Amino acid sequence: MAKLPTVVVLNGPNLNMLGKREPTIYGRDTLADVETACRAHAKTLGLALDFRQSNHEGELVGWIQEARGKAAGLVINAAALTHTSVALLDALQAAEVPTIEVHLSNIYRREPFRHHSYISRAAVGVICGLGPRGYLMALDALAGMVKAKGKR
Amino acid sequence: MAKLPTVVVLNGPNLNMLGKREPTIYGRDTLADVETACRAHAKTLGLALDFRQSNHEGELVGWIQEARGKAAGLVINAAALTHTSVALLDALQAAEVPTIEVHLSNIYRREPFRHHSYISRAAVGVICGLGPRGYLMALDALAGMVKAKGKR
Amino acid sequence: MAKLPTVVVLNGPNLNMLGKREPTIYGRDTLADVETACRAHAKTLGLALDFRQSNHEGELVGWIQEARGKAAGLVINAAALTHTSVALLDALQAAEVPTIEVHLSNIYRREPFRHHSYISRAAVGVICGLGPRGYLMALDALAGMVKAKGKR
Amino acid sequence: MAKLPTVVVLNGPNLNMLGKREPTIYGRDTLADVETACRAHAKTLGLALDFRQSNHEGELVGWIQEARGKAAGLVINAAALTHTSVALLDALQAAEVPTIEVHLSNIYRREPFRHHSYISRAAVGVICGLGPRGYLMALDALAGMVKAKGKR
Amino acid sequence: MAKLPTVVVLNGPNLNMLGKREPTIYGRDTLADVETACRAHAKTLGLALDFRQSNHEGELVGWIQEARGKAAGLVINAAALTHTSVALLDALQAAEVPTIEVHLSNIYRREPFRHHSYISRAAVGVICGLGPRGYLMALDALAGMVKAKGKR
Amino acid sequence: MAKLPTVVVLNGPNLNMLGKREPTIYGRDTLADVETACRAHAKTLGLALDFRQSNHEGELVGWIQEARGKAAGLVINAAALTHTSVALLDALQAAEVPTIEVHLSNIYRREPFRHHSYISRAAVGVICGLGPRGYLMALDALAGMVKAKGKR
Amino acid sequence: MAKLPTVVVLNGPNLNMLGKREPTIYGRDTLADVETACRAHAKTLGLALDFRQSNHEGELVGWIQEARGKAAGLVINAAALTHTSVALLDALQAAEVPTIEVHLSNIYRREPFRHHSYISRAAVGVICGLGPRGYLMALDALAGMVKAKGKR
Amino acid sequence: MAKLPTVVVLNGPNLNMLGKREPTIYGRDTLADVETACRAHAKTLGLALDFRQSNHEGELVGWIQEARGKAAGLVINAAALTHTSVALLDALQAAEVPTIEVHLSNIYRREPFRHHSYISRAAVGVICGLGPRGYLMALDALAGMVKAKGKR
Amino acid sequence: MAKLPTVVVLNGPNLNMLGKREPTIYGRDTLADVETACRAHAKTLGLALDFRQSNHEGELVGWIQEARGKAAGLVINAAALTHTSVALLDALQAAEVPTIEVHLSNIYRREPFRHHSYISRAAVGVICGLGPRGYLMALDALAGMVKAKGKR
Amino acid sequence: MAKLPTVVVLNGPNLNMLGKREPTIYGRDTLADVETACRAHAKTLGLALDFRQSNHEGELVGWIQEARGKAAGLVINAAALTHTSVALLDALQAAEVPTIEVHLSNIYRREPFRHHSYISRAAVGVICGLGPRGYLMALDALAGMVKAKGKR
Amino acid sequence: MAKLPTVVVLNGPNLNMLGKREPTIYGRDTLADVETACRAHAKTLGLALDFRQSNHEGELVGWIQEARGKAAGLVINAAALTHTSVALLDALQAAEVPTIEVHLSNIYRREPFRHHSYISRAAVGVICGLGPRGYLMALDALAGMVKAKGKR
Amino acid sequence: MAKLPTVVVLNGPNLNMLGKREPTIYGRDTLADVETACRAHAKTLGLALDFRQSNHEGELVGWIQEARGKAAGLVINAAALTHTSVALLDALQAAEVPTIEVHLSNIYRREPFRHHSYISRAAVGVICGLGPRGYLMALDALAGMVKAKGKR
Repeated sequence: MAKLPTVVVLNGPNLNMLGKREPTIYGRDTLADVETACRAHAKTLGLALDFRQSNHEGELVGWIQEARGKAAGLVINAAALTHTSVALLDALQAAEVPTIEVHLSNIYRREPFRHHSYISRAAVGVICGLGPRGYLMALDALAGMVKAKGKR
Repeated sequence: MAKLPTVVVLNGPNLNMLGKREPTIYGRDTLADVETACRAHAKTLGLALDFRQSNHEGELVGWIQEARGKAAGLVINAAALTHTSVALLDALQAAEVPTIEVHLSNIYRREPFRHHSYISRAAVGVICGLGPRGYLMALDALAGMVKAKGKR
Repeated sequence: MAKLPTVVVLNGPNLNMLGKREPTIYGRDTLADVETACRAHAKTLGLALDFRQSNHEGELVGWIQEARGKAAGLVINAAALTHTSVALLDALQAAEVPTIEVHLSNIYRREPFRHHSYISRAAVGVICGLGPRGYLMALDALAGMVKAKGKR
Repeated sequence: MAKLPTVVVLNGPNLNMLGKREPTIYGRDTLADVETACRAHAKTLGLALDFRQSNHEGELVGWIQEARGKAAGLVINAAALTHTSVALLDALQAAEVPTIEVHLSNIYRREPFRHHSYISRAAVGVICGLGPRGYLMALDALAGMVKAKGKR
Repeated sequence: MAKLPTVVVLNGPNLNMLGKREPTIYGRDTLADVETACRAHAKTLGLALDFRQSNHEGELVGWIQEARGKAAGLVINAAALTHTSVALLDALQAAEVPTIEVHLSNIYRREPFRHHSYISRAAVGVICGLGPRGYLMALDALAGMVKAKGKR
Repeated sequence: MAKLPTVVVLNGPNLNMLGKREPTIYGRDTLADVETACRAHAKTLGLALDFRQSNHEGELVGWIQEARGKAAGLVINAAALTHTSVALLDALQAAEVPTIEVHLSNIYRREPFRHHSYISRAAVGVICGLGPRGYLMALDALAGMVKAKGKR
Repeated sequence: MAKLPTVVVLNGPNLNMLGKREPTIYGRDTLADVETACRAHAKTLGLALDFRQSNHEGELVGWIQEARGKAAGLVINAAALTHTSVALLDALQAAEVPTIEVHLSNIYRREPFRHHSYISRAAVGVICGLGPRGYLMALDALAGMVKAKGKR
Repeated sequence: MAKLPTVVVLNGPNLNMLGKREPTIYGRDTLADVETACRAHAKTLGLALDFRQSNHEGELVGWIQEARGKAAGLVINAAALTHTSVALLDALQAAEVPTIEVHLSNIYRREPFRHHSYISRAAVGVICGLGPRGYLMALDALAGMVKAKGKR
Repeated sequence: MAKLPTVVVLNGPNLNMLGKREPTIYGRDTLADVETACRAHAKTLGLALDFRQSNHEGELVGWIQEARGKAAGLVINAAALTHTSVALLDALQAAEVPTIEVHLSNIYRREPFRHHSYISRAAVGVICGLGPRGYLMALDALAGMVKAKGKR
Repeated sequence: MAKLPTVVVLNGPNLNMLGKREPTIYGRDTLADVETACRAHAKTLGLALDFRQSNHEGELVGWIQEARGKAAGLVINAAALTHTSVALLDALQAAEVPTIEVHLSNIYRREPFRHHSYISRAAVGVICGLGPRGYLMALDALAGMVKAKGKR
Repeated sequence: MAKLPTVVVLNGPNLNMLGKREPTIYGRDTLADVETACRAHAKTLGLALDFRQSNHEGELVGWIQEARGKAAGLVINAAALTHTSVALLDALQAAEVPTIEVHLSNIYRREPFRHHSYISRAAVGVICGLGPRGYLMALDALAGMVKAKGKR
Repeated sequence: MAKLPTVVVLNGPNLNMLGKREPTIYGRDTLADVETACRAHAKTLGLALDFRQSNHEGELVGWIQEARGKAAGLVINAAALTHTSVALLDALQAAEVPTIEVHLSNIYRREPFRHHSYISRAAVGVICGLGPRGYLMALDALAGMVKAKGKR
């Protein structure tokens, strides 16, 4: 049986606190809930899923490097590191994997220091403010790209 | 037969040129192609669609005002006016209709004056860089909100 | 019977939504209420009134041009265009009609992008934060200028 | 006989030079002339008037503190201190008296350092560029607020 | 008889007031005078002329779109919109017609907000400060380009 | 009996309104309460206390000058003048008395213009956001410095 | 026997070099000395102490997350990460534990990039410039809060 | 005997500490020494001298107002107020007395916030960095202006 | 025979490399080609031509000074010095000769540091982006001014 | 046999991808190739080499701390952390080991956020844009310093 | 006979136009007049004078270098180069000759780009706005310094 | 005998003062010492050397122009002109000769206005802070490039 194309979903610092932390901003779903929803959705799209979270910039950099040449797509919610990490940007640019940036909240409506994203410079697209649904939408988009590429 | 909830899709200046204008940035689909895809997708979601384009800020403002109290959701790609129109922002804030901002290209990877959006201040979420697919994803998200509201 | 001196009162985008839009900021009076109050007040001051609203920058520019050489005074609440329209500024500078800028809310206490006014560069004075009363006060001030000019 | 509600009118540094200082900007009326006009107008509005001037920020702060719980309204032309005094802002915020900020000249048409006002953060409204008439208009507005409050 | 190549000359807001508005800055020629001079000059250069003015950004956008694939050249004096309209920039970039930006006055000697031009990003060249003569010079330049292209 | 080392505690504009002014920010203790607590605490630390308040920058400057060569330490809550007074900074630098800056509220969580302090340039340390307790902690710290100096 | 309330004391990068690194700025005490002093002081205050240091932002984030719902208070000297880490800010805001920010040196007297703190946005109060004593004072303040809470 | 023309010399906050305060920056002469030197020099120039110092901005404003129409010239060392006081600027502009700004130290070699002077906007000339000699040079310059004016 | 009015054409640093240096930006014409075209064109306009180039700011300043009272007009392409030389600005302002600023490329479409021009502050008009033709157009404009002046 | 002086060479995030990542910017050599070349060169210079790479800021901080008092020199290519890490700067300042900053590419010709380096504040010198050769040159320079120190 | 101490007076670009150029700003004296006055004054002060002007930054740099170890003092009016020349600053810092910066006009009342001076960083003092008298005052000050040094 | 490839070494303003000027920053070697060392080193590398210094920007521009098509490489220490000269940048870009920028001191540790370099935009690499050794290292790097080119 042919191996399914894999999408790597990376979550940055404090997303392991999802559902506990400031629910008026981030909602009540936990990261496990998000993962479960992503797994179910990936299945229907014919995608394998590799879902991870880390509070360490260095670990996230390593995971992006691993994705190079293996993953069919990358979904990244870099959380706080979105705004400060040139290292993640460099890793993404080196990875050459189609990447979609996701944020649960609309970062453009929050404090000014959350308006700037280094990740956006390396992402195909950005989805924000739509809660956990944003992850599923990102999977949809990557599935579309995988299919389009397969046809060529 | 119950009336379907309506989503208004508004397109700003120069989007009537889609498919002709700078295809490396905006792709080869015309606005009519986008509308056709939106209509088909809205049907499957049980939504009525009101799809419009104007080069006039004032006309767009009027259409947003009309949506107040009538539309179940609003998708707006304000194009160039995204970056300059406080009038559209004011209209959206007055409309009190859940709004999703869409851009065909990833505006955060283009010229700096395209990084700032007045629309984002009034939008629930933002989707950009995913081409015409972004419109369909916005319809998905609004359909989800309509259903959630119906349940309450 | 001598013709009364005319004051033109111009209202910019979204002011047709007055009373419906964000009443905690703009109050509950509609634009029709404001017009009625202005008409009554103008009568007591011996002024004819020409009261208009448009969501189109171009239409407002045209109305200012018409005022040139005809109107004795101009009251303008340019709303969102206050902060972005160099075209209105140019029109006002060409009109050479004494102009008073009015805002219902105190724009200097709102978001930073509302602190800057192009209109102020061409206005004799500015009245803001006093609600519909500000329009009546502007009429008072223009009536005073008309009278002073009549005496010379 | 019932005591009339009192409005305190405070004038900042150099306003004691009014009529002598740069008449092309500030006009030929002296501060005594302004006070006389205010007294006459207050009388017709059923208001008692407390009219003061100081070159000392500390003295103005003290007068605002005294107004707390006593004055029905406050008119303040803080002159140069408008642009530099956080202490006046703090005093006004603590005073909890409805305040109208007045400037004889249109400060928004003068040097850039005169465009920013700390006072505006604590004022109900701002009137500028209308000369001494601005004081009378401020009294009108406060009288209206007093009456509206009385009715409640 | 072969059809002459057409040059479209577009004039932005308030240029219909030319000759009346601030003659020390803009001179005493009316826009009709400018058009007459342009027509005479175009004739000698073997060019057809399409000369228009609008106070509406949206109308100007539409005219630029119409020029695409039809006009041999475009002269634009966007007036106040020069400094604020991303929509005109987008329209010009989509039009792919050689464009020359003209200003009657030297905008770089006026207020700072007039120093920045969105139009310049899409124009072949800029001529400013030379009054109505600038239009004729722009026609000269476009005629030269048409001829050069014809030879290739 | 040996004279006790004196600590001067200086309070800036509007702190005489403490307990009345915006209690959600500054708490319900009055300045007299703070003084009483300071006196009691100073006694236990073997310090004499000189506790003052003024709304006048000039008066505060004078008190700092007096402290030179006399006071063993200085606690200063310059309130609004913290952010604007170079004169207080110069006075403190000339005084050569160990100084601790105190703020009742956490100024770094308030409006941006309250984030900058001229006082900090001349202070040994800063304590903020801990309410009246901050004064007592400042006394502790100065007592520690006095003792350390005595031992040398 | 009732369990003592725990205060977590977190130290950021390079604080393990304390006493060796630039003693003119940071003093001669080692971090072990500071811990010993804190332990002794916590004992007298009836507090349990959890004292840690890490050079890794991710590890500090994890420790803050652990403190949620367990610790009675948090003292944090984030050192260099004070100025750059949005991740620590997010962790602190999610932790909902009363936090006091401590710096050994007066950061407002050093290089400009050390004047801004992300930590301050989530801290109750800030103590800086008072050396290791600042830690003890932070413990005092937290003990006071614990006691006040116990009384309620 | 004809009255001598008077020059008023005004000194701002903390200059009463001259000779004691930071002698490496300001030198060892006291303000009394400077006054003595000025008196002797004024005598030789045929000028009466009015030499004053205050820590209060309001008092300095009042002294400038008094100088209007009486003093032949003004020398002002506004010290810290140089950089922050719009009120002094307004007073000087209203006074219409030829003014020379003096600083003992070269303010352009010190902290950036000391590089900007409001006083310079109203002064004929500026002398800085030459110590107490700067005062004598300012008297020389004003004496020259008085003489030149007398000849006309 | 009457002497022809002279126009001085000045070329700044590196323009002697024209035709060799970055031809995609500056074209393939050499400076000698430009001079030849200018000479031919000046002749038809009845103008004498003085055409020079220097890499030295000081030499260009000297040539502008020589033009004073002698030249009927000045064309200047200051190249790199456009953006940095206040000395050229001062020389032009002192020269009182009508000046037209020319740039071969459209400097407003290049790096940001090339968008600012000191020369523009002293020039009647600016022509840029039209290659060597810009020089001829500048001569046309100056010829027109000379003629207009002759008629008066 | 005497122990050779050791030079520690530290490489920041993503440098483990060297040779794979964006070869047009960083070249085709892998980090192993760079290490091999460094080892060979160090041998000829009589230096021991300790060559490391990490994606973790905290790990790099730790390695710099270890170098204190042991290493004779430090070569650091902090990659993305160059622009964002105050922690590395603090570690270097505490280490008191002569340090040379190396970049493979010329960071001053890349995006603006790569132009600023925190590392430069603690480095003796900077070598950039010379590819892997830069490392060898840094070793040369450190060898020279070691020798010079040995002679003293 | 003992050689007199020499003061070098350097004048920057365009000062050779003095008396002709913009007399309302710079007065009617020519540079020759200024030199004559300086010579006469220097004689009375027992100083030799070396008075020069150049439009070339490089020549001025050379003259400052020559002054090193020979001149007793330096007076410099760098004119336009004041605001742009780091080379003059470096030359002055290397020269180690007491320097006084002179400007004929009050540069702090002119365009903003004239408010900043590189020269001030290397000058003992600054005299501006006092016309040619400023040169004589600078000579006085240097003579005083020479005498003071002679006494030591 | 084959002609050796030539490297041109250019030195900017004040470098002729090397060894005399501020030796704590620039060291005690004179420029002649640097030249001697460069000559010796070039010889061992098989390079001819052309070593020059000028205080004139224009002269340096000319030397760079001469290098075009003749020199195999260029080493430039533009000194103060590094930070201000667009003309040098333009000359270097036109020269198309591999260039290495050298600074004796680490310019990134000095005043902020020395952190920006126009030269870096045209240089292959930058070496700074390593004293005269930096020149020799630049020769090494150019020799390497010459050899690499020869092999192709």
